[in-house]
Parts: sequence; structure tokens; C-alpha cells
Amino acid sequence: MNGTIVSEQDNNTPTLLDPASVGIVTPQTLHFDEPLTLECKRVLPSFDLVIETYGELNADKTNAILICHALSGSHHAAGYHSESDTKAGWWDNLIGNGKAIDTSRFFVVCLNNIGSCHGSTGPTTINPATGEIWGADFPLITIKDWVKTQVMLSDRLGIAKWHAIVGGSMGGMQALQWSVDYPDRLERAVIIASTPKLSAQNIAFNEVARQSILSDPDFHDGWYLKHGTYPRRGLILARMVGHITYITEEAMKAKFGRDLKSGKFMYGYDVEFQVESYLRYQGERFSKNFDANTYLLMTKALDYFDPTRDYTKDELGEKEALKQTLARTKCQFLIVSFTTDWRFTPERSVEIVDALIANDKRVSFVNVDAPHGHDSFLFNIPRYTTAVRGFLNAPVIKRQTGDITPQEISQLARQ
Amino acid sequence: MNGTIVSEQDNNTPTLLDPASVGIVTPQTLHFDEPLTLECKRVLPSFDLVIETYGELNADKTNAILICHALSGSHHAAGYHSESDTKAGWWDNLIGNGKAIDTSRFFVVCLNNIGSCHGSTGPTTINPATGEIWGADFPLITIKDWVKTQVMLSDRLGIAKWHAIVGGSMGGMQALQWSVDYPDRLERAVIIASTPKLSAQNIAFNEVARQSILSDPDFHDGWYLKHGTYPRRGLILARMVGHITYITEEAMKAKFGRDLKSGKFMYGYDVEFQVESYLRYQGERFSKNFDANTYLLMTKALDYFDPTRDYTKDELGEKEALKQTLARTKCQFLIVSFTTDWRFTPERSVEIVDALIANDKRVSFVNVDAPHGHDSFLFNIPRYTTAVRGFLNAPVIKRQTGDITPQEISQLARQ
Repeated sequence: MNGTIVSEQDNNTPTLLDPASVGIVTPQTLHFDEPLTLECKRVLPSFDLVIETYGELNADKTNAILICHALSGSHHAAGYHSESDTKAGWWDNLIGNGKAIDTSRFFVVCLNNIGSCHGSTGPTTINPATGEIWGADFPLITIKDWVKTQVMLSDRLGIAKWHAIVGGSMGGMQALQWSVDYPDRLERAVIIASTPKLSAQNIAFNEVARQSILSDPDFHDGWYLKHGTYPRRGLILARMVGHITYITEEAMKAKFGRDLKSGKFMYGYDVEFQVESYLRYQGERFSKNFDANTYLLMTKALDYFDPTRDYTKDELGEKEALKQTLARTKCQFLIVSFTTDWRFTPERSVEIVDALIANDKRVSFVNVDAPHGHDSFLFNIPRYTTAVRGFLNAPVIKRQTGDITPQEISQLARQ
Repeated sequence: MNGTIVSEQDNNTPTLLDPASVGIVTPQTLHFDEPLTLECKRVLPSFDLVIETYGELNADKTNAILICHALSGSHHAAGYHSESDTKAGWWDNLIGNGKAIDTSRFFVVCLNNIGSCHGSTGPTTINPATGEIWGADFPLITIKDWVKTQVMLSDRLGIAKWHAIVGGSMGGMQALQWSVDYPDRLERAVIIASTPKLSAQNIAFNEVARQSILSDPDFHDGWYLKHGTYPRRGLILARMVGHITYITEEAMKAKFGRDLKSGKFMYGYDVEFQVESYLRYQGERFSKNFDANTYLLMTKALDYFDPTRDYTKDELGEKEALKQTLARTKCQFLIVSFTTDWRFTPERSVEIVDALIANDKRVSFVNVDAPHGHDSFLFNIPRYTTAVRGFLNAPVIKRQTGDITPQEISQLARQ
């Protein structure tokens, strides 16, 4: 969820001097003049997408990999923006020359989704109809809407079929939605630390974050920019509660335990425990770099996500609905979960795996032992990166009539 | 944590007509004129405790049980306040005629702790030094301070030794602190859904709740009553985030799943999912009945709790510190945890159990299979209530020289 944590927590902080780095990259803005009808029935008359690309597209345009970002992510997935830039892109651990997503083999595209606040059309950009900032007027966006814009981007880039579409957390949801909505346009989907849909508890945490922002008097019903303010307190609270769910109880214990900032109890409400200091810092920093309307919109996109909605009837049980929906898919899947992820647990990944197996789809699954909780997808963990690398580099296995099916393999494995 | 949930979630809602009910009860206020020096070094010149009692104290005053409440609890643990009162005390499931804490055998005392907002001296009562409401001037209180006031209450009631001291969650912490600080003044301690101290994650959730209140502009540095307002938004947020930790992901799924309030997506920030409606309702209701300064104080008392602080040196590891501290205890223990409690997990109870066993102390432990998460301690769950009843009704086992020790029993059980 949070690319910014990696550079602090990871000892192997990437640098521009690293030959594996994609080096200095320059974002591009692509303008789309076609109107875009959204799931909410509203229409964006036009929109911009900011993208970055790494590596070279081959002549037959078959080596392209699309990277989808999570809640607070952006188009800046790898490399640096200048010589003096000390902070690499949010997935620099995975994307680069010889890395798991190997830019010496693949043409890697990462975009900033609409509704976000890193350059693509969203609440902080200008509404062409009014000449003013979109603000609270910006429509709510769904994962399905994002995939639609990503298809338009594919057409613009001349990519008929992606070698792979890859994402962690909310990025994985986009890859899953792609596989269902546009089954002929990707060879592989890599879905990391994700879920087929949010649980009631996931929605509950999102709702606390939203209410933190919505109830901040500085929110002004979403028109804070017009009022020359921003809902700082709300954003801090939203990030604090979110952050607790991204990491683990064990990691917090190992890092902070019950350590006191000043070594003794102060009997007041200033920071006493180190973990308080850490959380407040995370919240403060985030509040300075993120837009509140975008945060609201992103959490709603998460809550709404359910790829079965368009393809099955309500009466079906969850399991059967997911099975019937994933019957449409044609790509090969890699599903990755992390043992300590309590936001989207390994069991949620297994739901996807089981629905694919029930359809005789080609799926690999790895549950990676990692201590970083949900944030693990941002880290350089050998078993994880090796699985991604192997999956992306291997040829797609075309099933032959008479081949053993994944269900049979699964049964054999149990014997 | 929340006695108010029980009456909604529990099908066996108690009524005044139930012969097992303690019936109509009247709280009493006891005034203590002695100055009380608190752990924070400040002194309360005097204070009031509001209490309720159920059952009859026997002639030799050996049948008294003290009930300690949790974060939002009060002295009103059982029965009703009037004929028209439809809401029983917060532990009516356990306390009554023939119930687990049997008022036909025992004299049961429940008090409202100082710093709370249900009548005992606290932020909403008058500071005798100024003649005005204590408000933000009320000192921070610790579990140890509460136990000190409870000892003064014991003296006032003429109870030299409690038959038992019983509490769930933060109430269990008070029972544990009693067993360490005043080992000669209780025969039994019943510690339910509790922990020897909070984890970093527990503190993190408390900190989010505190920041919600502290950052609410209506908080006015704790002087909201003087300003004729109250930090409603902050209290709602604090309760929402707390409430998520009191119940379980599974219970939320079973109760709400992803059900929509209006049956379809609204693409806005009004309530869409039933779980949002439920959380907002819980937050709203709580905000009308609870004091913000008290909420802050209670979460701090939780964070500070660590009975090893006075009895061991910092260099000791956690396990050894707890072992050395609990060596002081003389009572018999019943420790109860609940399988789905993720706030204070069964593993936290086992820490207490292990430290007692390492000291050859008499301890019974039951990990009760229950679906209600941390709130389970408020419910009428047969295995739980049976364990409490049995432990309270049985005579204390006096160890004889040559008896088998708990450690030996534990070793035998493993063979």
C-alpha cells in the first residue's frame, strides 16, 4: 500500500548508481479526448494519464508488462526523477535490469490511475467543463473503470496483448479484473497480496478512515482547496489506522515493543511510547503528500471491488459466483500471498486459487513467509521475487488435450 | 469492553421478571476524605466512589466478591435501576441468584473507578479546590491507583480478604494487580480476556482513538464542557476503531457480509454497506453517553499497565520479569481466554498462566471457544460461566507439603 515505507525499512535501499536500476526516468502525460462512461453512469469528457515506461518494446509488441498501483501509489514505480533524487520508485525492489520484472527483457509500463493525485485526471486537476479544480465533484471510480482506461492506454501504445499485468494489493485487483473483463488481452496475471473482494472488517477499517476525513471541519465537503485549507487531522487519522493494518503486531513488537520515547511515563497526552511517535510521523508525512478526496475515492474503489457482480446473479454463493466468473479467464495466473498479511490474508488468495483450479485454469500459488504483513509485497524477499521472475520469464504453458489438469494435480498432491 | 452490546446481540436478554435477576438495585456513593497520592505524583484531596452491591455479606465477612469494570463499564453490573428500566447491568449474564457469580452465596460489590464518568470522582465531577468541573485538570490514573482506591473501599466495608476479585479485559488487569500488590487480601483472582500488558499494536489502536479525540476542534484541550460543546466526532471515531477490535472479522462477516443498505451502490459517501451503518450507529450512541476526557484517561491506564514495573528491573526479559513479579502472589487463579479474541489473544493469557506455573502457583486456565471476539467476556457462554461458577464455589486448595506441584502436573500432562 505504501511505497514510501520500503526505503526506510529495507536495508537494501536502491540507489541510482546500482547497475540494476532503470536510472533516470521521465513521466509522460497522455491525453484521451474520448468521453469515458464510468460505472457510476457519469461521463468524463476527457482525461489524462501520466505514465512511466522502463525497457524497450519489441518489434511485435509482445514483451509489454503493465504495472497497476495500490491505494497511495503512482506511475513512478522504478528509477529516479533526477540525478539528485534519492528516493527510488515504489517498486524499485522488483523492477529493473535483471530484477524480477526484468527491464532488459520487458517493456514495463506503469500508470497513475484516474482519481489519484499524482498527475492523472483526478480531484486535484482542472475540470474542463468549469475551468476549476474538480474537487468534490470528481466522480467515484471503480477498479473496472481503471481497467477500462488501461485498455485505452493499451490501444494508444499499440499493445494488443500484454505479456503480463502485475499488481499488489489494489493493483492485484486490477489484474484480476483485467483477466475477467478482457480475457484475450493478457497472457499472464500476477496478483499479489490481494483478495477477490473486501471483507466486512476491511470495509469497516476503510469506513473509519473515511469518517476521519469527512468529519474534519477543514474538509469543507471536499472543497478544502477552494477554502485554502486541507483536512490534515483527518488524513493523519486515516493513515494511522490504515498503517496499523499494513504491518503486523509482531513487527511492531520487534521494532518498538513498549519502549518509551523519554524513558519514563509522562502522564500526559504527548508522545510516550515509540510506537505512538512512529504512527504520528507516518500520519503527518502522508497528510502532506496526499489528497483527501483521492483517499476517499480509493477506499471506495476498494470497497466496491467484486469482479463477480457483472457476471453472476446474487443468489449464487460467494464461492460459486467466483468460480463462474473466473471461468471467463484465459491467461495464466501467479497468485502470491504473505504469511503475516492480516489485511488480505493468504486465505483470501486461496479463494482465487481454488476458483481457478475449479475451472481447470493454469495457476501457480505461493504463500511467502515474510514478516512485513501486507506491506511485504513492496519488499525484496527472495522467494517472492524468484516466483515472480520465474513466472514472467517462462513461456506460457499451452494445455494439450489429454494433459493432466490442475484439479488432477491437486488431487494427486493430496494422495 | 462494552456492556451495551450484550443486550442486542444476546438472545437471552435478561429481564427484571427473571427470578435469577438481582432485581432493582440502588447505587450508593461513598466519600473518602483521605488524600490519595497517585502514581503520577499528584494528590486527590478527596474522592467519591459509586458502588452497587448484590447479595448479603456474611457475619465473618468472608463471602465478598469484588467486580472490576473495563474501559466503558460502571458500578452497574447487575439488575435494574427501576421498574421501568429495560436494560440490565453490564454483567447481568454472570451475576445473579444461581448464576456464575451467585448472589445467593456471595456478597458482590461493583464500583465505578475514579476517572470514569458514571458518578465516581472524575473529569466530569467538581474539583473541590476550584468549585468547578475537573475537566482536563483531572490527573491520569493507573490500574495501580484504582487498586489502591479499591483497598480503601475494602477497609470501609470491613472486608479484610476478598473471597474473589473478578474482572474482564481491563477489569482482569485490576484483579492481577491486586494479586501482586495486596497478596494477603484476596483468596481468588479471576482474570478474563486480559493480558499482562498491552502490545505495541494495542497501544497503536489506543493512540488512534486518542488522536481522534485530541484533534477534534471541539475538544478544546479537554475544556469542552466549559465551552458548551463536546468532541462528538472524535468520540465517534474512537469508538468505531475500538469496536472493530472488540468483535471478530468472522462475526462481522456473518452479521453483515457485504450487504448493502439500499441494495445497490450509491457512489457517494453516505452509508452504503450495512457494516458502515452499524459502526456509525455504535459510534454515535457511544458519543452521547461517554466523556471524552474519561476515554483518554482509560486508554492511557491500559497503555501504562505493567505489574512488573514496581517489582523487577528493566534488564530482565519480559517472561522472567512476569515470573518474578507473580512470585509475590498468594491467591488461587482462574484465567479465561476466548479463541476469537484478537485484542487480547489466548496467548496473552497463557503468558500469565505460564508465569504462575513457573512459580508453582495454583492456576486454572480455560480457553473458551466463542465467536464474539474480545466481547465474549460479556456473554452467557456455558463453558465460560461454568468455569467461573466452579472456581468461585469450590474451596481453595491449600497445598500440602509433598503435594504434586502444577509444574509436575504440567509435565505429566505432556507425557
